[in-house]
Amino acid sequence: MASLRKASTRFNHLLWQQSPKCSNLSLVNGVKHMSSLETLGFIGLGNMGNHMARNLVKKGHKLVVFDVSKNAMKTIENMEGCENCVQTVNSPADVAAQCKHIITMLPATQHVQEVYTSRGTGIFSAIQENSLLVDSSTIDPAASQEMAAIASEKDSSYVDAPVSGGVNAARDAALTFMVGGAPKSFEMAQKYLSVMGRNVVHCGPVGTGQAAKICNNMLLGISMIGTSEAMNLGKKLGLEPKLLAKILNTSSGRCWSSEVYNPCPGVLDGVPSSNNYYGGFGTALMTKDLGLANNAATVTKSPIPMGSLAHQIYRIMTSSGYAGKDFSSAYKFLQDQEDKS
Amino acid sequence: MASLRKASTRFNHLLWQQSPKCSNLSLVNGVKHMSSLETLGFIGLGNMGNHMARNLVKKGHKLVVFDVSKNAMKTIENMEGCENCVQTVNSPADVAAQCKHIITMLPATQHVQEVYTSRGTGIFSAIQENSLLVDSSTIDPAASQEMAAIASEKDSSYVDAPVSGGVNAARDAALTFMVGGAPKSFEMAQKYLSVMGRNVVHCGPVGTGQAAKICNNMLLGISMIGTSEAMNLGKKLGLEPKLLAKILNTSSGRCWSSEVYNPCPGVLDGVPSSNNYYGGFGTALMTKDLGLANNAATVTKSPIPMGSLAHQIYRIMTSSGYAGKDFSSAYKFLQDQEDKS
Amino acid sequence: MASLRKASTRFNHLLWQQSPKCSNLSLVNGVKHMSSLETLGFIGLGNMGNHMARNLVKKGHKLVVFDVSKNAMKTIENMEGCENCVQTVNSPADVAAQCKHIITMLPATQHVQEVYTSRGTGIFSAIQENSLLVDSSTIDPAASQEMAAIASEKDSSYVDAPVSGGVNAARDAALTFMVGGAPKSFEMAQKYLSVMGRNVVHCGPVGTGQAAKICNNMLLGISMIGTSEAMNLGKKLGLEPKLLAKILNTSSGRCWSSEVYNPCPGVLDGVPSSNNYYGGFGTALMTKDLGLANNAATVTKSPIPMGSLAHQIYRIMTSSGYAGKDFSSAYKFLQDQEDKS
Amino acid sequence: MASLRKASTRFNHLLWQQSPKCSNLSLVNGVKHMSSLETLGFIGLGNMGNHMARNLVKKGHKLVVFDVSKNAMKTIENMEGCENCVQTVNSPADVAAQCKHIITMLPATQHVQEVYTSRGTGIFSAIQENSLLVDSSTIDPAASQEMAAIASEKDSSYVDAPVSGGVNAARDAALTFMVGGAPKSFEMAQKYLSVMGRNVVHCGPVGTGQAAKICNNMLLGISMIGTSEAMNLGKKLGLEPKLLAKILNTSSGRCWSSEVYNPCPGVLDGVPSSNNYYGGFGTALMTKDLGLANNAATVTKSPIPMGSLAHQIYRIMTSSGYAGKDFSSAYKFLQDQEDKS
Repeated sequence: MASLRKASTRFNHLLWQQSPKCSNLSLVNGVKHMSSLETLGFIGLGNMGNHMARNLVKKGHKLVVFDVSKNAMKTIENMEGCENCVQTVNSPADVAAQCKHIITMLPATQHVQEVYTSRGTGIFSAIQENSLLVDSSTIDPAASQEMAAIASEKDSSYVDAPVSGGVNAARDAALTFMVGGAPKSFEMAQKYLSVMGRNVVHCGPVGTGQAAKICNNMLLGISMIGTSEAMNLGKKLGLEPKLLAKILNTSSGRCWSSEVYNPCPGVLDGVPSSNNYYGGFGTALMTKDLGLANNAATVTKSPIPMGSLAHQIYRIMTSSGYAGKDFSSAYKFLQDQEDKS
Repeated sequence: MASLRKASTRFNHLLWQQSPKCSNLSLVNGVKHMSSLETLGFIGLGNMGNHMARNLVKKGHKLVVFDVSKNAMKTIENMEGCENCVQTVNSPADVAAQCKHIITMLPATQHVQEVYTSRGTGIFSAIQENSLLVDSSTIDPAASQEMAAIASEKDSSYVDAPVSGGVNAARDAALTFMVGGAPKSFEMAQKYLSVMGRNVVHCGPVGTGQAAKICNNMLLGISMIGTSEAMNLGKKLGLEPKLLAKILNTSSGRCWSSEVYNPCPGVLDGVPSSNNYYGGFGTALMTKDLGLANNAATVTKSPIPMGSLAHQIYRIMTSSGYAGKDFSSAYKFLQDQEDKS
Repeated sequence: MASLRKASTRFNHLLWQQSPKCSNLSLVNGVKHMSSLETLGFIGLGNMGNHMARNLVKKGHKLVVFDVSKNAMKTIENMEGCENCVQTVNSPADVAAQCKHIITMLPATQHVQEVYTSRGTGIFSAIQENSLLVDSSTIDPAASQEMAAIASEKDSSYVDAPVSGGVNAARDAALTFMVGGAPKSFEMAQKYLSVMGRNVVHCGPVGTGQAAKICNNMLLGISMIGTSEAMNLGKKLGLEPKLLAKILNTSSGRCWSSEVYNPCPGVLDGVPSSNNYYGGFGTALMTKDLGLANNAATVTKSPIPMGSLAHQIYRIMTSSGYAGKDFSSAYKFLQDQEDKS
Repeated sequence: MASLRKASTRFNHLLWQQSPKCSNLSLVNGVKHMSSLETLGFIGLGNMGNHMARNLVKKGHKLVVFDVSKNAMKTIENMEGCENCVQTVNSPADVAAQCKHIITMLPATQHVQEVYTSRGTGIFSAIQENSLLVDSSTIDPAASQEMAAIASEKDSSYVDAPVSGGVNAARDAALTFMVGGAPKSFEMAQKYLSVMGRNVVHCGPVGTGQAAKICNNMLLGISMIGTSEAMNLGKKLGLEPKLLAKILNTSSGRCWSSEVYNPCPGVLDGVPSSNNYYGGFGTALMTKDLGLANNAATVTKSPIPMGSLAHQIYRIMTSSGYAGKDFSSAYKFLQDQEDKS
């Protein structure tokens, strides 16, 4: 049981409740601004980005922000307890013109390439010397290396710093950052990343952050479907789901998906599976990450039979109405029709 | 790191080192026999069974044993610090004639059917009234239910009690038992099972122990190949294996296979992957368990795409020279040829 | 092109049009009964069985029939141009009491076991000496061997004779029969089977007919999903479906599924894909056959990675609303949502 | 049987024997050169390319050739019955400087990009106005479109024209060409392609030739493994391989792999499986083509579960000693160890 209790605790602060380390959350209505902290550029205020930006503000940073959605910018500009600590501008170039340290959090490779390299409006068109660019998007490692090459031509540095952990980890500053870049750049970036996350790991040169993210999410994507199959099969064989989960979690079948994010409704409280698979990490996003894993595997000639099958299953789910549901809806996808309805 | 340190500790006593709870191991040369303990029948003294039987003896039980291998019987008969505490006989029937409480640990369904039902030599041909039969083999749940039906015709009871944990868990009395049977039978069996294992879980009626075992091992078999793919891909992408393992184990990719039984040589000490995949849980055995999972899934019409693919991969490994290696050799199977040699 | 023209011709008589060999079809309103022909027993008048029985009648056989559905019996009893040539009875035993030569066409293993072995009502409870039992159901080869063993105890013979070809091949007497049994039994059975089909192949001893059927349908199930993937991918890459089919059919991608049963709507006329996947061979039936293939593969320790995945995909389709559609609806299952609706 | 006889005939001229249409082969020792025929550039004289080039020469074309291997160039320069009809040069640029019509046959995307775009030595650095570039390599459709774009900047045209059919089809001028390009360019190219192949199909705009090739080879790769599984399973179930092949080829399991290229040794003469999988189409090449299919599927968000699994199986074979064997060695890969040796 020990490991089960521990699991659900970890689960609690990892995903929903307030973590001890996050007590500053209770200060939302009275953030103190230590004027000593740098003003940072932040581009990309989506489901993840807006939480990450808020945590920087709560910690006392001022931000110059850009997002294609004016609403997204307005929302954070007006966040409670923050006066004049967020300035909105009209392009990535405008951010680069005002800030030497910029964090980007974007959906996919092509968005990163556009935000960084667009003529006139991209970061590189207005970048200052000795800037530090921190890209937390999950993209093709090769694209990260391209951006790093251009940055160094501009006498600046770039690190790839993709995250592990979903929307709630972003909100609770409980993310894990996997960082690829030169040691000095990593040190600089770490100062900001540690404000938004709990673990900041230096993985090696530029691109290895993406590599680590891709490998983690491939294994996660595999384990989640595997857990869904095991829970569904066990239920059909007459096992009570909570009991089966307990057995798996104290045995060799134990994994993050069975322990803290179980896909079977009713086994754990507060996870997407107990909320009709609303919230969490969308199936379309998992499909995208597994697409990156497949490309990387093809380029490096690495066999990934399970990773490829997982990719295809999420792909079919995405084209069958599960795109917007949490990826743990693999459980629902595998269920009998009557169970589904 | 916290969870990593914890992981390797758990790993240590789960797999190799001496566990605090197993300090009686140090008494091998001076086991005390409390004459109060029942004499038990034990059939099947293979890699797992001989360790389980020894733990019963160490705790003070006398045993009447049978195995098709005379050597296996002789070895335990002559175990150090045990005088006249093990009696060998010539058939399962002979065991049943002398003992009312019998534990069986056999390779597969057909062996269980033979040991229990053979005319003249099987358990049922000499069973006494009110006997308790505890089968720890991993077999088809339907076969367990057949045995239970015959047992009750003989005014006796039967429980299926398959185990989780390998040879070392058997040696260290650290097994998990998943038990299917009537509550009263479970209580009786629990007394003996707790001597041989750390967790004894009541899963429901006869057959649910097998169901739990099948579901756990299916998920284990999936996670192990998934972990092998992630470790191999990461290495090819330039990540240092120990670092990648650390990242997975503090992120959502974490699973038993990555944490305590990592398939990549050099990441953990004392696991099969660091011993050329010698010892541990053979690929042929995992293939057999996944065959049971596939049959159960077909009968219950449960989709198990990842479980089926895992079954097929271990099947190919089994017919390609990996049958006797630990199932974590999936990592080696997926590697490039030069890396293999 | 040559092979394409040939393909569609073959397609025509294989599935829909009248084949030269089937000109007796035109006699539906005036069947001549050559009194010389034996009266046969026929059990199982479903989608396939009723067509097979009709062809026997058209050829001049009288039948004693049984089906669990009284309507099914009435329908054939009242078929046009047939007076007093079909007698309905109340059980398989009644059939066996009147006929020495009996053909059975049933859904699955358990139905065959019931029809043959039920006490009092089963075939074996009233079988006459020197009877010939011809089972055209697709079942577990091991079950066929059991039936054969009981038959020989009754001084009778049994052959397994599963079919290839769908409802239309049954209607047009264009089936292929794969027969397992002793040479003498095969010769006797062949006389009747050739009335219902175009190819009657002796595969070897009892059980090999099922083996051949299982292997054929496994490959068919694989090719159909593969063809669906190729057609869907090609369409997304800008290829016109009819052109792509033509290319595949004149190249090494050619298979029965691409040539005569293309799953992409509009490529061929008169196939299920051009009829909203109505008619043809149901996904649930293909799933059942692939379940038999998986069991046989597990028992013989044969790796079937593609066969297992195909099984799982049809399994998921079956539990997602495709159970009653033709198995070529795999194409629809893989399509984008908008394309689906 | 009909279709079987037909199959083996087709097989004969498609793969090994002399086809009636190829009687010009008998003229090897006395090729007539109609001086009217254009001099063509030819780049890439590998297993496929050297046969294609020879057929152009046999038909009366003079060639200006380049290959990275001097031996490859010398061999064709010295081909029997050809005096001064082949000129060798030092770079693709030299070819382009002398010829307006150039055919390229290269291993992979990067080689095509190098041969066409290298500064100073590439085709584009010396291309003449109104040139026609015909690339028969199998590459990423996107790369074909890039080449076409550059060609049109140089007032020239480009078509992608990948082939179906192996080394023997190349030798016997029995290839199928799948061509993507503008109608006018197609017409020009067709004149030369029809000399080297039997079918020349216009698939649509630039890139669709590659798309057709990718779809065909994906289905071929799937069917070959499926056929291997069916043949291996059938053999284990007691079926005689030649009989099983006959049954499949007259039933719905029929495919090119079962009919004309059966992977089971001894079923057909003259195919790689009857020659220890020597010759034919290497597993590494099939793996490469399936990698292209996977990339195209990811880009177009098309699910290809079977295609992905086939990719992974050939990938594992490639890293397990099968890289240089014909891809039908999938049969051997799936066999039991004893059967293998």
